[in-house]
Amino acid sequence: MVSGLVSRSLSRVREMVANATGRNGEPTEKQLDRIRRQLRECAESRGGEVSTRLRAARLADTYLKLDDAGRQAFLRIIALEFGPDPQRVAKAHDAYQAAVGTPRQWDAEAQMRAAMRSSRIRILTQFNAIPQGVKFLVDLRADLLRYLEHDKELKALDRELEARLTAWFDVGFLELQRLTWNSPAALLEKIVQYEAVHAIQSWKDLKNRLGSDRRCYAFFHPRMPLEPLIFVEVALLQDLADNVQKLLDENAPVADAERANTAIFYSISATQEGLRGVSFGNFLLKRVVDDLQRDFPRLQTFATLSPIPGLVRWASRNPKDVMAAFSEADWKRLATAGIDGPESPRLAQILAGNPEWATDPALVRALRDPLLRATAAYLLEAKRDKEPLDPVARFHLGNGARVERLNWLADTSEKGLGQAWGVMVNYLYDPERIVDNVGAFVEEGRIDAAAGVKRLARR
Amino acid sequence: MVSGLVSRSLSRVREMVANATGRNGEPTEKQLDRIRRQLRECAESRGGEVSTRLRAARLADTYLKLDDAGRQAFLRIIALEFGPDPQRVAKAHDAYQAAVGTPRQWDAEAQMRAAMRSSRIRILTQFNAIPQGVKFLVDLRADLLRYLEHDKELKALDRELEARLTAWFDVGFLELQRLTWNSPAALLEKIVQYEAVHAIQSWKDLKNRLGSDRRCYAFFHPRMPLEPLIFVEVALLQDLADNVQKLLDENAPVADAERANTAIFYSISATQEGLRGVSFGNFLLKRVVDDLQRDFPRLQTFATLSPIPGLVRWASRNPKDVMAAFSEADWKRLATAGIDGPESPRLAQILAGNPEWATDPALVRALRDPLLRATAAYLLEAKRDKEPLDPVARFHLGNGARVERLNWLADTSEKGLGQAWGVMVNYLYDPERIVDNVGAFVEEGRIDAAAGVKRLARR
Amino acid sequence: MVSGLVSRSLSRVREMVANATGRNGEPTEKQLDRIRRQLRECAESRGGEVSTRLRAARLADTYLKLDDAGRQAFLRIIALEFGPDPQRVAKAHDAYQAAVGTPRQWDAEAQMRAAMRSSRIRILTQFNAIPQGVKFLVDLRADLLRYLEHDKELKALDRELEARLTAWFDVGFLELQRLTWNSPAALLEKIVQYEAVHAIQSWKDLKNRLGSDRRCYAFFHPRMPLEPLIFVEVALLQDLADNVQKLLDENAPVADAERANTAIFYSISATQEGLRGVSFGNFLLKRVVDDLQRDFPRLQTFATLSPIPGLVRWASRNPKDVMAAFSEADWKRLATAGIDGPESPRLAQILAGNPEWATDPALVRALRDPLLRATAAYLLEAKRDKEPLDPVARFHLGNGARVERLNWLADTSEKGLGQAWGVMVNYLYDPERIVDNVGAFVEEGRIDAAAGVKRLARR
Amino acid sequence: MVSGLVSRSLSRVREMVANATGRNGEPTEKQLDRIRRQLRECAESRGGEVSTRLRAARLADTYLKLDDAGRQAFLRIIALEFGPDPQRVAKAHDAYQAAVGTPRQWDAEAQMRAAMRSSRIRILTQFNAIPQGVKFLVDLRADLLRYLEHDKELKALDRELEARLTAWFDVGFLELQRLTWNSPAALLEKIVQYEAVHAIQSWKDLKNRLGSDRRCYAFFHPRMPLEPLIFVEVALLQDLADNVQKLLDENAPVADAERANTAIFYSISATQEGLRGVSFGNFLLKRVVDDLQRDFPRLQTFATLSPIPGLVRWASRNPKDVMAAFSEADWKRLATAGIDGPESPRLAQILAGNPEWATDPALVRALRDPLLRATAAYLLEAKRDKEPLDPVARFHLGNGARVERLNWLADTSEKGLGQAWGVMVNYLYDPERIVDNVGAFVEEGRIDAAAGVKRLARR
Repeated sequence: MVSGLVSRSLSRVREMVANATGRNGEPTEKQLDRIRRQLRECAESRGGEVSTRLRAARLADTYLKLDDAGRQAFLRIIALEFGPDPQRVAKAHDAYQAAVGTPRQWDAEAQMRAAMRSSRIRILTQFNAIPQGVKFLVDLRADLLRYLEHDKELKALDRELEARLTAWFDVGFLELQRLTWNSPAALLEKIVQYEAVHAIQSWKDLKNRLGSDRRCYAFFHPRMPLEPLIFVEVALLQDLADNVQKLLDENAPVADAERANTAIFYSISATQEGLRGVSFGNFLLKRVVDDLQRDFPRLQTFATLSPIPGLVRWASRNPKDVMAAFSEADWKRLATAGIDGPESPRLAQILAGNPEWATDPALVRALRDPLLRATAAYLLEAKRDKEPLDPVARFHLGNGARVERLNWLADTSEKGLGQAWGVMVNYLYDPERIVDNVGAFVEEGRIDAAAGVKRLARR
Repeated sequence: MVSGLVSRSLSRVREMVANATGRNGEPTEKQLDRIRRQLRECAESRGGEVSTRLRAARLADTYLKLDDAGRQAFLRIIALEFGPDPQRVAKAHDAYQAAVGTPRQWDAEAQMRAAMRSSRIRILTQFNAIPQGVKFLVDLRADLLRYLEHDKELKALDRELEARLTAWFDVGFLELQRLTWNSPAALLEKIVQYEAVHAIQSWKDLKNRLGSDRRCYAFFHPRMPLEPLIFVEVALLQDLADNVQKLLDENAPVADAERANTAIFYSISATQEGLRGVSFGNFLLKRVVDDLQRDFPRLQTFATLSPIPGLVRWASRNPKDVMAAFSEADWKRLATAGIDGPESPRLAQILAGNPEWATDPALVRALRDPLLRATAAYLLEAKRDKEPLDPVARFHLGNGARVERLNWLADTSEKGLGQAWGVMVNYLYDPERIVDNVGAFVEEGRIDAAAGVKRLARR
Repeated sequence: MVSGLVSRSLSRVREMVANATGRNGEPTEKQLDRIRRQLRECAESRGGEVSTRLRAARLADTYLKLDDAGRQAFLRIIALEFGPDPQRVAKAHDAYQAAVGTPRQWDAEAQMRAAMRSSRIRILTQFNAIPQGVKFLVDLRADLLRYLEHDKELKALDRELEARLTAWFDVGFLELQRLTWNSPAALLEKIVQYEAVHAIQSWKDLKNRLGSDRRCYAFFHPRMPLEPLIFVEVALLQDLADNVQKLLDENAPVADAERANTAIFYSISATQEGLRGVSFGNFLLKRVVDDLQRDFPRLQTFATLSPIPGLVRWASRNPKDVMAAFSEADWKRLATAGIDGPESPRLAQILAGNPEWATDPALVRALRDPLLRATAAYLLEAKRDKEPLDPVARFHLGNGARVERLNWLADTSEKGLGQAWGVMVNYLYDPERIVDNVGAFVEEGRIDAAAGVKRLARR
Repeated sequence: MVSGLVSRSLSRVREMVANATGRNGEPTEKQLDRIRRQLRECAESRGGEVSTRLRAARLADTYLKLDDAGRQAFLRIIALEFGPDPQRVAKAHDAYQAAVGTPRQWDAEAQMRAAMRSSRIRILTQFNAIPQGVKFLVDLRADLLRYLEHDKELKALDRELEARLTAWFDVGFLELQRLTWNSPAALLEKIVQYEAVHAIQSWKDLKNRLGSDRRCYAFFHPRMPLEPLIFVEVALLQDLADNVQKLLDENAPVADAERANTAIFYSISATQEGLRGVSFGNFLLKRVVDDLQRDFPRLQTFATLSPIPGLVRWASRNPKDVMAAFSEADWKRLATAGIDGPESPRLAQILAGNPEWATDPALVRALRDPLLRATAAYLLEAKRDKEPLDPVARFHLGNGARVERLNWLADTSEKGLGQAWGVMVNYLYDPERIVDNVGAFVEEGRIDAAAGVKRLARR
């Protein structure tokens, strides 16, 4: 079964191992052979499943002690040496095709599936025996995804592992938990670490985000108990929020949640790189909306206050589309604010995300209209394949939301100004339109947007 | 994609539906079309995954209301109409075989897996959205296995579902729980229902089995909280147990568990027909042994007191092997007890499981040696493929146990006399031999047995 | 301090001990001296509180091993030898009375309290150190109450212990729990044992009482976790229940609790004899009503279906009051049913609780009116001091309920016919009248009753 | 019952109320009358206990809204107007004394207790009905203790409340919990607030104190779930700790707890001012030692690293005793370090707690011996009544510990230098000596100390 390719691959494994550095990280060729032998034992379950699992646990431990080069070598062995046997597959496939249209088709299909079954997933599953087994495999996939960027031969392994993780992290197994100030400190510490949208500055900031007019929900897997998979932070308000700094102000008075009519999802963070491609974010929002409606029957509006992470990047690559958003009137106003035209180097810097303009009231006024227009164009028209270019837009529009409102100077942090000129967007989840929106979005790529936003984009 | 076979199959579905009886069970052709349409929507996730799951829940509800004929029709639709597309598979297979031995092999493998991916599992997984979703699917598989006996076309679906359940019920996800008299009554009631080896007569009998010199452990899945998957009952004793009625005597004094040196596993029951082929029994024993050793450091011997469910059935099919166990001396002793030779109709009845002899002391004495010999021969020599014919023997020997001792008149219940002439066997789990035993058993079919048992078999 | 009385008492202790029988139960005089010495050590906390508690635990253990005579001797030692010092009390009292009306009064009061403080409670409290300490003391009080019936010298000890238990079992510390079929079997078994009103026949009967149209609530103390202190069984119905056998029929269909408008408290049982005088039953009903109203907003009527345990006993002692309930018309109807007048021996037997009449339709019809009249008279007019003679009436009327309706042939069990001619009563808890009813009842002994019941009583 | 004293007291109440300031804090005379009426209703349970509790809850709410003057007035009403009736007490006392020595003594004692029973505690107990009732009463007692300093007429009330809290907070009801980084953040935040010995600087500092080589235990009451009553912080080490800054260094490597032989209790904080006089600290240490011994069988030494909070205060009041600790040799060494004799103003400042000397190596060397001698003298000889003057010494020596070692420059924080010249002491808990030590301490005031410390004190 060791074809020419495999032996070439293995020599590359050895090479990588030879080049690898780090704390007792690089397996020698001898160690590699030992690993290979152990993997084979795992694959064959020699000595019974129980003892195999125990030995697999030791192998998992070995993996954890390897450095990146060693781990990649380890994973390549699994990927390249424990796949299906092409000849067996060919035979099963022949039988299958011959059976199509006859009553034997379904048995033949089952046989072909058996031939396709590789030992890779059998090996990986056995690692599940260690105490934090599920987390181990999720982290292993995160490694794998990194190596995969430059090593396409790992792809079959990645796809098998992704399929297994998709089965394990089926949304039916996930538990929705509300996080509060009574949650374990070790768990809240993870929220601080994982928050990817608006960094949490301190425990005081965190406590503020868990106040009586706030909610924080996370999905958990029963075997990763203190590890939130994805979490959302919600503010209960009287109106659509238009500024995130106001929302996060620790000194702002606590609102009366009982009187709120609007729930703003102002931060959603997925935490496990190793679960890329395993989707549950949309279920999280659905479950959270259900929970909020039960607790606060007055809530009528569910919307986000979202960043637009790709805006400035897009602008730098599509200067013409940006310029098209500037009218004659805009240029006049800009001239009085010290920007003398499209070629102005200062304007270039502004468009590239340099935040200094935000403290100049004249510039703030003059830039408002054209930049909001450019933003609307970006959100509604910039596509990758048929989907929105902006990843956050892709997520919410794919879930059936609509682009409700753009907010000027809504995130004046350096990050906010740097990635999106401080603009933020409210995506609105209108229960009556969600299903239609998802349908139109998936089938025709159509985006639902409020009239005001469409008007901006049209200019 | 609707090949000739499929349309034939469908007409059979309609026919079955037409023949079906039962409470509002049989879907009409019209209903069937509606089901088909709904299944298609599930498969395509039209309108987004969230709303698809909701609709799937309604479909699951439909399934529950169908009678057997309706359910079979339902499953056939999934099995036959939502499989992979043979042409797409053929194309992907060609590309794969062409890529073997090149760096493209692994990507091509991933592509072929994608082509093999059917919508069946996607549909079934979506049923996981209902509150008791996992249990629903386990029960659906139990249905499927019943229909499969006469309808081989369901096989591909069954294999896909088995693979998914194997992933979901990976032992790493199962929780070991000790059941006590403090466990929920609803849970203990299930133990009463599921006990498959020695029926539990009453709540008093149950309480006795949970006394301080007893232990009961079960595996649970985090999403089936009050549903034991498999459970084992243990007695803590000073010696190997040789009689199950004594063990279960409610009036026997409670032993001092602290002084016990022997743990007897006297009943193991798997409860979910729908998890056939998904193994975790061996892990249960391993985990229980660990737990007992921690609690009772004096324990040295771990053994079963097991039934021999296939003995009488085997004897009736292999009369010569049984007769070979009778020596001249045996025949003499039997003659004085009223059995005048191999042709005796009374002997025939005894061998067939008629229990009346057990109250006749002379017969009990005379039958002891030959029947124990026949039993030893059955356990050590009767095979199916290379494995022991007896299912309980298969389980324990496959886990690395050895045949330690045969016990005469060890189960004098009607069931015990009827299936195994009242004989029971102790399988011994010796930690030092388990790994070797599993190896020898798996590779060579070799069975470990105590000298005394081997000697019996040799005659 | 050992006055003549005490030495007399002690000789009685020795005598009791000498007479006592039972498994290693009776302490000898020597043992008694040892116990006395140990009690003194407990009282003085010699060697620090921590080690005193440990020794107290051993003393508690000694108590448990004594038989009744031994225990009574043990308690007498505590009662008679560890009370306050009368001379110290006298001195403190003089100082107190001298200080009354001056600012020193309050300090002098505190000093007198200190003089009154006995070592008895200090000793008993230390028994709290054993694992089931609270339960131990509750059971010890049950012993004490039994001995107290014939040994009034234990009264001071009993009152001190009652005061301490009253503090410990303050309703603010009790936890309301709903019991369901998912509750621990060990707990449900206690419900079976403790049910004092309508005996639970089997686990099936119990499961029926925990069905979806039933509720069972109990109060627990945080340190007696599996020990219900008092529990109530509730049926959710469409109407006032009029028959308890119907209510408990295991074969009756389960009602739809969501549509119920009436909650019937059909059984209330206090379980701990040792908590006599510590009241929480009224709080239980209040809490249960709150809980039910939250879960079932349609509920409008909260009532009991209660036994009348003292009716037949009262009738036997007050024959004139019973006879007054029989009208001329009644006697005529009775004559046709075979009872020829007030002197009829058969009537005497019926009134004494002999149940045989209940199967004779003519008698059932003829007795209905006069016996319901006698019952109404008993409930509304028979008093002990100013309170109703019937203990169940005393409880509910003291809680503010009213006598709503009498039910003929409502409990046809032997017990029901024997204690109350099968009559049961609905006490109604009308939230709008409870406070007024309690006031009128406590201050004037006035009983609230429906017009129909009053009318019956008037005849 | 309203004697002259009471009316005088009431006018003082009104006066206080008139002077009081604060947010709607001061009750007017009218409000006061309303409060009085409500208290009377509580005391009499008019309308039944259930509705009384509900009204008491409103009264508790009223209390919380009052300012200090109002609360004191409120408590004075309870203290002065709801006490026992002196005439009834006198009568019961006469009967009691007459019965002494007769069998009626014990009943008469019970009657006198009944006469002494005041309505105060009945009122206060009813406040237990509010959700955080126990915490409310503990905080109310903290108020009471503050007012009591200047208002001795509250003493009787305080003693009754203390007795009730002593019953409620019996150590048998308290739960020992280990606090870890997995404990609720809201609970850990309280630890930060309540730490009274070595202030916790940050969440990072806190996390360090909960590391794998640390333990933190607290006692909880079942009705105050997130409120630690007292907690102790423990370090697991290889030796007696001699410096608290080292112990708390966040950058120190984590030790291997498995190999530790010494447990150092380096901080013990009681948190509830309102539980003054209710002791459980000694039980906490006992329970923690038990728990640690179970988890770490290698532990042999249990000791504290304790502050000496009263040392500098004592030194300032007893200059002669301090001077006696300085030898000729000391004065010489001090002279070279710039301190020219007993009259040196700089020395006076040092002895008064001015920390500047600690950075001058010559002074540090020269002061070591005399100050350690003075410290030893303080710990072993300075008394209040027969007990050690130092409160921390009083606690540990009363629990049976011994003074094991003094540590120079063990706490160089400003607080440590200011209160005890940076000296700390190890109190050793030697299981074999605890009982004897408690006995000797309680009965003779004898203090156990290591030879080295005694030698220091002798000079």
